[in-house]
Amino acid sequence: MNRRVRVGVNGYGVIGKRVADAVSLQDDMELVGVADVVHDYRIRVAVERGYPVYASDPASRPEMEAAGIPVTGTLDDLLAGTEIVVDCTPKSVGAKNRERYRAAGVKAVWQGGEKHEVAGYSFVAQVNYAGALGLDSARVVSCNTTALCRVLGALHARGWVKRARAILLRRATDPWESHLTGVINTVIPEMKVPSHQGPDLQTVIPGLDITTLAGVGAHNLSHLHFAMVETTRPVSVDELRGALWDAPRIAFVRASEGVAALNSVIELMRDLRRPRGDLWEVAVWEDALAADEREVYLTYQVHNEAIVVPENIDCIRALTGLAANAERSIEKTNAALGVTNAFLPASTRPIPRLARTEGAHA
Amino acid sequence: MNRRVRVGVNGYGVIGKRVADAVSLQDDMELVGVADVVHDYRIRVAVERGYPVYASDPASRPEMEAAGIPVTGTLDDLLAGTEIVVDCTPKSVGAKNRERYRAAGVKAVWQGGEKHEVAGYSFVAQVNYAGALGLDSARVVSCNTTALCRVLGALHARGWVKRARAILLRRATDPWESHLTGVINTVIPEMKVPSHQGPDLQTVIPGLDITTLAGVGAHNLSHLHFAMVETTRPVSVDELRGALWDAPRIAFVRASEGVAALNSVIELMRDLRRPRGDLWEVAVWEDALAADEREVYLTYQVHNEAIVVPENIDCIRALTGLAANAERSIEKTNAALGVTNAFLPASTRPIPRLARTEGAHA
Repeated sequence: MNRRVRVGVNGYGVIGKRVADAVSLQDDMELVGVADVVHDYRIRVAVERGYPVYASDPASRPEMEAAGIPVTGTLDDLLAGTEIVVDCTPKSVGAKNRERYRAAGVKAVWQGGEKHEVAGYSFVAQVNYAGALGLDSARVVSCNTTALCRVLGALHARGWVKRARAILLRRATDPWESHLTGVINTVIPEMKVPSHQGPDLQTVIPGLDITTLAGVGAHNLSHLHFAMVETTRPVSVDELRGALWDAPRIAFVRASEGVAALNSVIELMRDLRRPRGDLWEVAVWEDALAADEREVYLTYQVHNEAIVVPENIDCIRALTGLAANAERSIEKTNAALGVTNAFLPASTRPIPRLARTEGAHA
Repeated sequence: MNRRVRVGVNGYGVIGKRVADAVSLQDDMELVGVADVVHDYRIRVAVERGYPVYASDPASRPEMEAAGIPVTGTLDDLLAGTEIVVDCTPKSVGAKNRERYRAAGVKAVWQGGEKHEVAGYSFVAQVNYAGALGLDSARVVSCNTTALCRVLGALHARGWVKRARAILLRRATDPWESHLTGVINTVIPEMKVPSHQGPDLQTVIPGLDITTLAGVGAHNLSHLHFAMVETTRPVSVDELRGALWDAPRIAFVRASEGVAALNSVIELMRDLRRPRGDLWEVAVWEDALAADEREVYLTYQVHNEAIVVPENIDCIRALTGLAANAERSIEKTNAALGVTNAFLPASTRPIPRLARTEGAHA
């Protein structure tokens, strides 16, 4: 029988609840429980699913119990029973948990809201899985950075990227809290130029020359990236298409098939019976791929709620040594969750594989 | 006494109504009348303002009169009494009027929705006023192209632009029709890459190397541009700021003063008692200006309803020879409308003028 790694999830929010579901779908993992401090509908769903619930903060336990939540124990109790914890607490809270995880002798996966230094290793499965093998901790980079690493990393791996530029139009807020922090009928440009995602990508792919600018739009269905990539030689649209098709967790959508905007992609995910309508892949508009003698141009959608979920699963495997290489872990995670490179395979003609004629950097 | 040019406006929509108001504020122009085909609140406002109303299409005259609109005559009657017509009819309708204007011996100003070839000359006052002097017709380029020409043209004039790239996040719809064509909670990326605005800019500034990508956001308060400009030598933020400060119709806004987003800029215009809350200038976020050894980065707002209005006035002056050069016309138009380079001059410290040490291209 397979070895099963005992996993705890600390923080049952937008990412934590998805990671918990994903862990429970892996045949080489066991979800020991989830910890949080709230006692409203969010954590009640965990109870409905049969996940043991722990109090992240002992002070919140009485309130949770008074609200009828069966609390199995505190965070320390959860850590005592696990081999690895996925920290999905809010930004910068995670860093404060580091000593606690260390003292408990538990490996840790952090999210992109924490600094690179908290974990010491920034992780995107298809780029640098091998380097995380057996480490005590790693950080799954943020949604935007994950997408940049997958897409631009696929071009970089072929030695094509001379210099990349991307504009990131971020979603205003997550759906669950859009009644609290809605952004209506405006766009908020980010004053910090370049935005942090470019340097963050370089924690995963140090050699990739990139600058990013960002803004927040009046929508909460995913981010949208416009990337302009100077190439080391003229790269055709066919080559570009082939390189993306060959990379994991990138899937094409087409305006010519009615997938015209962010909402159409999410509607497609709902129609495909994806849990919560989640899009784990980077959705690249195939009909907006373009190339000239100097550059290639890409437009793609990044589902901030979901894209890092398979990365967390792979990161657990890397830290605990459950899978010896990226291909094996990615394949296993993709199969368990349903991650694909073709959303509508019955009617999608496959794209011929490109020969890997050029030296791969990754 | 000044010579006064007799001006007609054909099409009293988003642009036409603003051009009519702007013409009526110039001491060297006389608004002979406005022509349209509708009979609802839009044209009734023209009647309230005392503008003579004409029927663009004789077939629409009976309906207009039945609705109580006092119709002075047909478009031919309007043309007979004018020296120059500003065509503000919907995209591609304008081109069909060309022969009619020519037959009437009337000069014509077209809008950016028409092709360059319709007018034979594409116009942005601060870039190429002189070339339009005495021509029979010209085209005031679109809002986005006007903004690109003003901002990137200011850098190009100093010989700084090696290559420019811009992402244009367009407004979903104009406010007057947002109940008809709203875009809610999504972004629609444009599949045509590069988008048309780059080549369109080159009808005004042939030597400027630019590529643009575009998308439509879930907002109707202006467009937002993110520009990344490779420079011919390292250009500092101070130099960048100085070059923009020196150029007409570009004004800074600052997130540090609470002007954080598209809506804040428009609210400022409303507070400043601008007619219809119009922003004629390009509003550049000063705190988002950035530069490195290779590039400069700019984020700015383009009010699609208003930015071309002063351009139309200057274009009238160029075609009719009312002002001998751009500076004179721009100054006159700016004074009449209230176009500025500092929205809050009482509390804005001026930026030192840059020496024009480098050869100006324009």
